[in-house]
Amino acid sequence: MTTPVTPVAPPLKDELDIVIPTIRNLDFLEMWRPFFQPYHLIIVQDGDPTKIIKVPDGFDYELYNRNDINRILGPKASCISFKDSACRCFGFMVSKKKYIFTIDDDCFVAKDPTGKDINALQQHIHNLLTPSTPFFFNTLYDPYREGADFVRGYPFSMREGVPTAISHGLWLNIPDYDAPTQLVKPRERNTRYVDAVLTIPKGTIFPMCGMNLGFDRELIGPAMYFGLMGDGQPIGRYDDMWAGWCAKVICDHLSLGVKTGLPYIWHSKASNPFVNLKKEYKGIYWQEDIIPFFQSVTFSKESTTVQKCYIELSLMVKEKLSKVDPYFQKLADSMVTWIEAWEELNSPAKSAPAANADAKKK
Amino acid sequence: MTTPVTPVAPPLKDELDIVIPTIRNLDFLEMWRPFFQPYHLIIVQDGDPTKIIKVPDGFDYELYNRNDINRILGPKASCISFKDSACRCFGFMVSKKKYIFTIDDDCFVAKDPTGKDINALQQHIHNLLTPSTPFFFNTLYDPYREGADFVRGYPFSMREGVPTAISHGLWLNIPDYDAPTQLVKPRERNTRYVDAVLTIPKGTIFPMCGMNLGFDRELIGPAMYFGLMGDGQPIGRYDDMWAGWCAKVICDHLSLGVKTGLPYIWHSKASNPFVNLKKEYKGIYWQEDIIPFFQSVTFSKESTTVQKCYIELSLMVKEKLSKVDPYFQKLADSMVTWIEAWEELNSPAKSAPAANADAKKK
Repeated sequence: MTTPVTPVAPPLKDELDIVIPTIRNLDFLEMWRPFFQPYHLIIVQDGDPTKIIKVPDGFDYELYNRNDINRILGPKASCISFKDSACRCFGFMVSKKKYIFTIDDDCFVAKDPTGKDINALQQHIHNLLTPSTPFFFNTLYDPYREGADFVRGYPFSMREGVPTAISHGLWLNIPDYDAPTQLVKPRERNTRYVDAVLTIPKGTIFPMCGMNLGFDRELIGPAMYFGLMGDGQPIGRYDDMWAGWCAKVICDHLSLGVKTGLPYIWHSKASNPFVNLKKEYKGIYWQEDIIPFFQSVTFSKESTTVQKCYIELSLMVKEKLSKVDPYFQKLADSMVTWIEAWEELNSPAKSAPAANADAKKK
Repeated sequence: MTTPVTPVAPPLKDELDIVIPTIRNLDFLEMWRPFFQPYHLIIVQDGDPTKIIKVPDGFDYELYNRNDINRILGPKASCISFKDSACRCFGFMVSKKKYIFTIDDDCFVAKDPTGKDINALQQHIHNLLTPSTPFFFNTLYDPYREGADFVRGYPFSMREGVPTAISHGLWLNIPDYDAPTQLVKPRERNTRYVDAVLTIPKGTIFPMCGMNLGFDRELIGPAMYFGLMGDGQPIGRYDDMWAGWCAKVICDHLSLGVKTGLPYIWHSKASNPFVNLKKEYKGIYWQEDIIPFFQSVTFSKESTTVQKCYIELSLMVKEKLSKVDPYFQKLADSMVTWIEAWEELNSPAKSAPAANADAKKK
């Protein structure tokens, strides 16, 4: 006699959007079907808006191309990058859900060491729904995981943890290297499965990759701006880095947690290192000033929300980084535009859903 | 046709001492023989000095009991704990080597996921001989490891890293839990092998366990004081924590690195949680003040050596922690005594080796 199977609803089915920036048909979704199909997708089409992007049957999605972005945001569309995966943050803005998972279209399902397919989304959800521990380091990694706990010497007052805002996943096969490292190590593959999730301590910033990333939109969404990259800009491939630096200092200020580690996805192919070098080279020397800048950022007591922190940060960027390059003046202005656009689409007073109604819903 | 085997000398054979605090016969060394036998052991016998500690044949060692400690240090012996594994730091002081590995006598050889015996000492040596990266977080963990590197967005100016002062290893089987957690989770075992080494970021203190620990004595030795614990003291089981808090803030000030993760040892048996609770309970509430204290420690520019930092720290402990309990006044005094004794035994001017000559060399 068998017990009838009670169907288990996928976790956060109605509270999470999957955001995918793309320039091509989304065949990669076939492999993700068992894990993604119950969820709603927001596809941000980059490049030529007349191109037709094919989405495999059976997925529930809305798709925005550049014309949609321009129509919805009007002049404020200037803050959304073009011809760069930075455009994905438009999807964060138009989502109405509490959680976002974003993934690149060259990322596939990885296998754990036992050979089992890794449900990356499920692990991100787990990371986001369990607390973080940014104020003290736990040597056995995530203390909330089955079979683990806080070690001897961990202050009891800190064991409740804080809400988790960001879950940063990793990559098997092609590691997320910069162009110089790609050039020097063309054959390097990441084969090491590190079975850990850990909180990045308060006061420590980190290189956040947008390839495989979950976050709580209500907690940190307005800080997830991917900057001005790509077409007409002097820099590319620093979109996720920018978002990560900004989001981390704001999380630290607001006592929110950032986790990194599991889940892994399978990153299928390395991007062209020569093209990457061209996009990155300014970033490679700018970051020598940007990192110390972010390491020294402190917010005023008045900045009690992500939006307020972000506006304050834009002022600091303008003041401190404009001397590195005039680009940062433009970026600081875009940060303000981004927040204005975010509030326009997400303010309860405004008829935000109307914007979405313009998109091609399927 | 086979190539004749060229014997490979064990790494750092003449530059590393293994320090073991004990109250019993050292049968546990049998299992470690393939890895430890080439090295010199410093055994610190705790408790009754008339008891004979048997050491398996073939090991090169010196052994110190309480009478030896009293004879060598005279009145300064008061800074070395009695009836507590904190006495191990006497071994750090009398060593003349550059590196120390210290291990508890209930720790055995663990196996990696492929079933191979883990040479814990070799991994510690590897950790200590490769740089640390405390100024920025690398999401692929140790960037110096085979098959890994710095990820995109990692500032190039920071990729040389800094010298590694401490290598903190972990434990399979019995995790290093405090008494309350032991009581609540009597059956919990650590079975998760996390295949990673990472640098604990600058500004982050951590709970350092003395069970499986390597360090560079020349870089950080004088900060590795295990405090006043055990007999006649109001607290126990915070010896390694104390050393870890002190050493980490000093490493941060002097730009030295602290790594945690691999290697694992097999921790064979949990200590009695009721006995532990009695030893720990003051520490459990004191640490709520101690951690914020260490998180706010900053040293003056004049403190350019570990010794100077440690003396400055003793003054801060006296000033800030004495109000928590008068014990910290005594501890602060002992910190000074420890440094005086360290300098007496380790100053090139003094006839330091004479002290060692008193020990029972085998």
